[in-house]
Amino acid sequence: MNRKNLNMFTLEDVSTLERIIKNRRDVRGSRFTSQEIEPEKLERILHAGINAPSVGFSQPWEFVLIKNQKIKEQVKACFNVENKKGGAQFSGAKQDLYSKLKLEGITEAPLNIAVFYKPSPHPVLGQTTMKDAGPFSVVCAIQNMWLMARALDLGLGWISIIDPEQVKSILNAPEDHQLIGYFALGYVDQFYAIPELETIGWDQRKSLADVVVYEQYPTP
Amino acid sequence: MNRKNLNMFTLEDVSTLERIIKNRRDVRGSRFTSQEIEPEKLERILHAGINAPSVGFSQPWEFVLIKNQKIKEQVKACFNVENKKGGAQFSGAKQDLYSKLKLEGITEAPLNIAVFYKPSPHPVLGQTTMKDAGPFSVVCAIQNMWLMARALDLGLGWISIIDPEQVKSILNAPEDHQLIGYFALGYVDQFYAIPELETIGWDQRKSLADVVVYEQYPTP
Repeated sequence: MNRKNLNMFTLEDVSTLERIIKNRRDVRGSRFTSQEIEPEKLERILHAGINAPSVGFSQPWEFVLIKNQKIKEQVKACFNVENKKGGAQFSGAKQDLYSKLKLEGITEAPLNIAVFYKPSPHPVLGQTTMKDAGPFSVVCAIQNMWLMARALDLGLGWISIIDPEQVKSILNAPEDHQLIGYFALGYVDQFYAIPELETIGWDQRKSLADVVVYEQYPTP
Repeated sequence: MNRKNLNMFTLEDVSTLERIIKNRRDVRGSRFTSQEIEPEKLERILHAGINAPSVGFSQPWEFVLIKNQKIKEQVKACFNVENKKGGAQFSGAKQDLYSKLKLEGITEAPLNIAVFYKPSPHPVLGQTTMKDAGPFSVVCAIQNMWLMARALDLGLGWISIIDPEQVKSILNAPEDHQLIGYFALGYVDQFYAIPELETIGWDQRKSLADVVVYEQYPTP
């Protein structure tokens, strides 16, 4: 056996991961179907989450699974308020475009997942200077879940246009918990080949040359 | 052709992703070798990063690639200061254990990567209420890179025991940029079968039952 766990993956495995990463999409309301999610698929997605890295092995995540339509509607009402405020921050053509976009699938998706950061009452190894390493661990879990959902043919949408304090209140979340993200999960009628915001020209895709810096930023 | 991009992945693909996720490790100093990273592997890792989801398709990431040993040594000096402070926050057996752990591989790894969040000067769709959605997008990129590195047999270690302002200053980073994470990347002599902090009993692995809540938190 390979006791050092080296060379465990083939070039084909690398290309599988690449295809999953490139075909993952942020899914909005009009794409979700009402088809139920198989419990074993949901379990695989959650397992992908809890196998994420976490600062000091603190595993500071909690996942609230929401099927109750009344709770979803309360969250949707929060979205509506924030979305109106959000849209007002844009002007001209972008404001028009914004108003036409369907930005969430809260009530359409069969399952919502609220993902929380639960701080530790004790010092956490690695989190003594950069406190954000805790919430960031939770985001690593989310990205694992997103990829696993895509491989299982399930769409996930991140709904960030909500007031986290209001959603915490709807879910009775403990005071010290931080809402990291709120998600809609479900089967979809299609996955776009490229992101919707790229298709409609909301913004352009950056290349590596746009985002890579060598050694140091140039002295201003 | 499959124009709706459904059923693109087989059960074998799912299991490949699962194996990559479960075998990913946070790699520390004593495991890195000095072997150079092939440029095409590094490019695949960075491409995995820039294909991550980002709020409003803002792609707010920047990656500083550091080979210069002098810069690494300056960052290592920052680590030493914060690590001393960090260790002092633990007591008893944990303090002993902490002092014996090698928590970074800054100078041993052939490449360091500082990953920044670069805020947009304009409003960003989806980031109008939850400002953290910007930094969180960058963490999604980091997790994609971590998985791709593992599939390519490269180890990545997240060094969070540093003062981000000091590292920004070492790298001449623009004032408005936020350091999200600092990483060591390189070939390793082995990948642990399970995380080191789990092996030494620093903390116990949580199960799904520990972290899943249904519908709402119970009323206190």
